[in-house]
Amino acid sequence: MSTVQLNLDTDDAVLPPPRTEGGATLASALRLRRSTREFLPDALSLQEVSDLLWAAFGVNRPPRQGRTAPSAHDWQEIAVFAVLPEGAFRYDPQAHRLSLVKAEDLRGFTGLQAFAASAPLDLVYVADFAAMHDVRADERPFLAGADAGCIAQNVYLHCAAHGLGTVVRALIDRRRLAQALGLQPTERIALAQSVGRCATPADT
Amino acid sequence: MSTVQLNLDTDDAVLPPPRTEGGATLASALRLRRSTREFLPDALSLQEVSDLLWAAFGVNRPPRQGRTAPSAHDWQEIAVFAVLPEGAFRYDPQAHRLSLVKAEDLRGFTGLQAFAASAPLDLVYVADFAAMHDVRADERPFLAGADAGCIAQNVYLHCAAHGLGTVVRALIDRRRLAQALGLQPTERIALAQSVGRCATPADT
Repeated sequence: MSTVQLNLDTDDAVLPPPRTEGGATLASALRLRRSTREFLPDALSLQEVSDLLWAAFGVNRPPRQGRTAPSAHDWQEIAVFAVLPEGAFRYDPQAHRLSLVKAEDLRGFTGLQAFAASAPLDLVYVADFAAMHDVRADERPFLAGADAGCIAQNVYLHCAAHGLGTVVRALIDRRRLAQALGLQPTERIALAQSVGRCATPADT
Repeated sequence: MSTVQLNLDTDDAVLPPPRTEGGATLASALRLRRSTREFLPDALSLQEVSDLLWAAFGVNRPPRQGRTAPSAHDWQEIAVFAVLPEGAFRYDPQAHRLSLVKAEDLRGFTGLQAFAASAPLDLVYVADFAAMHDVRADERPFLAGADAGCIAQNVYLHCAAHGLGTVVRALIDRRRLAQALGLQPTERIALAQSVGRCATPADT
């Protein structure tokens, strides 16, 4: 079964500390950056999930809670959800933990394309519009898109550097997924991103 | 004066090949990722501009014109403009060249904050809405934001890896800048991003 082995009894999962040293060069990750739409069913290890979440939008400068991706007005309005076979979890970047949202396999809810459900991990980037002050309401989707894009690119490069496949997706049944994740009315799904081991050597 | 030394007589500038080997690790770039709003006036070298543009949205898989950042529907709808003291240029990723748009210093047009004009380079990410087929018109700004965000994050990480400072900006007088750059009616400015040497050891 899965090697993620989250402890669902405690409603949250302690992640091992992320590995933030060593690995491939940025230049190499940029060279290898691509989208993958066919994934092997192999689960990711909890260490891989930990590394990935930190790279995506983790705290990189603890004294001031700086993050690996920028956000407009420093709102840090995007929450990263990890949708795994074991359940859906919300990433807490300050504590570097996962909090259980639902102990069900919601991967099929994260995208309209069949491959979304086949990847062992789907990340979902959710913007809290309530945190987006001092801006016209009609600019919020654009800014949430830009901020989620920065996070998605971190995941692309991290996957490229670690031999994983990934694809970011905007084609989402947002109403259905928001309901499944129990989101608040102010929370809007920006993007989703599938991650797994590549089934094919190269496509997009 | 500037060390960029573009040849404005020919209306375009051949960039040296980008350095796509070596350098810092991705993990290190993620650790150092931050926003900088104070820049030294020192110009960037043409090699630095070349490396930066390739990292931003260059061709990383020549056989299929794959790019260092993804785009919705593979539209590749974002054009990168390099606004330098010598003039404003449009980046041609296929030829890895800069084409002169205007031989004027338009840096003061790229942002409402004073620091935008002080950086030696401002990148401007422009979406061509005419290229964004098969999607509702009201989704284009969001998707352009997400795609520009991916490019901006490449620039953040490249700067972090090379000791440069950068900040992405959404607060732009888009009408004024579009006019200065001579954009087409279908072209919309998504984001701008200042790049230069840091005047301060750390801020955001």
